[in-house]
Amino acid sequence: MGEVDQQAGPGYVTGGKEFNRDMNYIADRITADGRDGWPVEDGRYRLIAARACPWANRTLIVRRLLGLEDAISLGLCGPTHDQRSWTFDLDPGGVDPVLGYERLQQAYFARYPDYPRGITVPAIVDVPSKAVVTNDFPSITIDFSLEWTKFHRDGAPELYPEALRDEIDTVNKRVFTEINNGVYRCGFAGSQRAYDAAYDRLFTALDWLEERLTDRRYLVGDSITEADVRLFTTLARFDAVYHGHFKCNRNKLAEFDALWAYARDLFQTPGFGDTTDFVQIKQHYYIVHTDVNPTQIVPKGPDLSNWLTPHHREQLGGRPFGEGTPPGPPKPAEVVPDGHGAVAA
Amino acid sequence: MGEVDQQAGPGYVTGGKEFNRDMNYIADRITADGRDGWPVEDGRYRLIAARACPWANRTLIVRRLLGLEDAISLGLCGPTHDQRSWTFDLDPGGVDPVLGYERLQQAYFARYPDYPRGITVPAIVDVPSKAVVTNDFPSITIDFSLEWTKFHRDGAPELYPEALRDEIDTVNKRVFTEINNGVYRCGFAGSQRAYDAAYDRLFTALDWLEERLTDRRYLVGDSITEADVRLFTTLARFDAVYHGHFKCNRNKLAEFDALWAYARDLFQTPGFGDTTDFVQIKQHYYIVHTDVNPTQIVPKGPDLSNWLTPHHREQLGGRPFGEGTPPGPPKPAEVVPDGHGAVAA
Repeated sequence: MGEVDQQAGPGYVTGGKEFNRDMNYIADRITADGRDGWPVEDGRYRLIAARACPWANRTLIVRRLLGLEDAISLGLCGPTHDQRSWTFDLDPGGVDPVLGYERLQQAYFARYPDYPRGITVPAIVDVPSKAVVTNDFPSITIDFSLEWTKFHRDGAPELYPEALRDEIDTVNKRVFTEINNGVYRCGFAGSQRAYDAAYDRLFTALDWLEERLTDRRYLVGDSITEADVRLFTTLARFDAVYHGHFKCNRNKLAEFDALWAYARDLFQTPGFGDTTDFVQIKQHYYIVHTDVNPTQIVPKGPDLSNWLTPHHREQLGGRPFGEGTPPGPPKPAEVVPDGHGAVAA
Repeated sequence: MGEVDQQAGPGYVTGGKEFNRDMNYIADRITADGRDGWPVEDGRYRLIAARACPWANRTLIVRRLLGLEDAISLGLCGPTHDQRSWTFDLDPGGVDPVLGYERLQQAYFARYPDYPRGITVPAIVDVPSKAVVTNDFPSITIDFSLEWTKFHRDGAPELYPEALRDEIDTVNKRVFTEINNGVYRCGFAGSQRAYDAAYDRLFTALDWLEERLTDRRYLVGDSITEADVRLFTTLARFDAVYHGHFKCNRNKLAEFDALWAYARDLFQTPGFGDTTDFVQIKQHYYIVHTDVNPTQIVPKGPDLSNWLTPHHREQLGGRPFGEGTPPGPPKPAEVVPDGHGAVAA
């Protein structure tokens, strides 16, 4: 949930305080049986994401792995946003061509005129009413896997297979608290003490992953699952942003052996690297968080061409897509500029 | 010249502007013939340095390599300073035991009551008058080599040998503008454009050094010279500070082959690593530059134990101290806490 807090000032860091993420979301679900009033339906919903945001990036990966591009359209917000909202500044005229909105906030207000919390991506909008259905990011990708099966492409992988669900949930829980959110806990720490503790937690968890991934190709089972998607979007941002901007700097991701090879393996798998836009990722963090980086200067580094180097993880076996197949190339309108997000520039 | 600008606000970054270093110093020289009124003399002068500061660190290295510790006493300022001056906050009672000053500024005012420019380290103070003689850092180390020969230890190396002087000067010039000052040009850039240009200049020069040092052990000739001292103090701060804080992040120093081995070779040579205090270095930059790092949080990383790994540069030949010998251990009062500046912690 790339978040814009409508209430708070421009600050992300609260002096003396630990960073705590607001975890209240619009919890409606879009389901096969339509029990919340939102049945899966071809072309009815629009996913609003931002390539910069790790939580939204998950939805871009899963939508593509499952081949949901035709069933669920995509609107993309630009990497930076103002005080009030993510905006459609990348679109011609600064307006989402389907919703006619300039700001994602308008879709939240269409649902709740007094919506008081953060305007977050990813969000799924009901196109007929132009109102947000849900921004409950942990459910969105699971529902893509379990509720939208009717619209999956042939060969879509099983990202949340029943037999592995407990293990995936367990891994996801630790990855969320310690890694996905852990990097923010470092970067938005309001005191040296809170930062020091956050740093130790983060690298303890990364060391756990390094060990876990030394002899297994994927986090859970023999194939890519929801767990890999959730870890990947944080790893993709690690050296580009978190290492410097959030002071997660014991070492670079590229200085881990297994974890770095694992990240490159995924990056080089269709659906992962081709939904990663390093240019927008860097712009987002360095320009938006003015209380961490008041100059708003975006570093030119690091050199990211190393993402395309051989990873040799095939030697560990595994079948990336299980019984399924890789997705084809991205739709032309959804290609990240400069190939793998400027890596090959 | 770790600098405190008495006039400017707390800012190091000027919006829209390139960073330009004030290069006006008190240019008196302490010489063997005393032509400026300041003859070399045993025990008369006190070097005021700060371990944090790369320009001051040069003087600590050269003083130690040449064995001038007894002839020239040492006062050390703490890593952080206030708006007006470096301070003696590390000393008992916050007062330099020889000069009786709380702030280095007092020694500048003793020389020039209206001294208008930055209060910088290194500075050499005349103990009888308690007034600064010089803060002209490029001359200080050269004069240690050429003017203080009477007080050199047995086996002191020739750091500025006549036969190599032109080449050393040429290398030093490029190292100063592109590297020593180049990292500040990145970190204090007032616009994206100024930063981008500074970054390109810096890494162009680092690539030049990487190539130059691939088949030669030292920068000029077969032994350590003034050129190596001047480059070393920037390299020692590169991964610890400049990479993140100043956005010099194409890659870490540890990701260069030759340059990183070269830096470790020097670090593991008496006089270099044992005058390097990574704790104070990190505190200085991250706490003092509030317009770059407003939270003043000091990163826990990077892991610096890699400075002690084998460098294998002996294979290139060379004689570190030429006809001379390494210095003995540091004086007990001048030992950096935690051995090599907390590397081995």
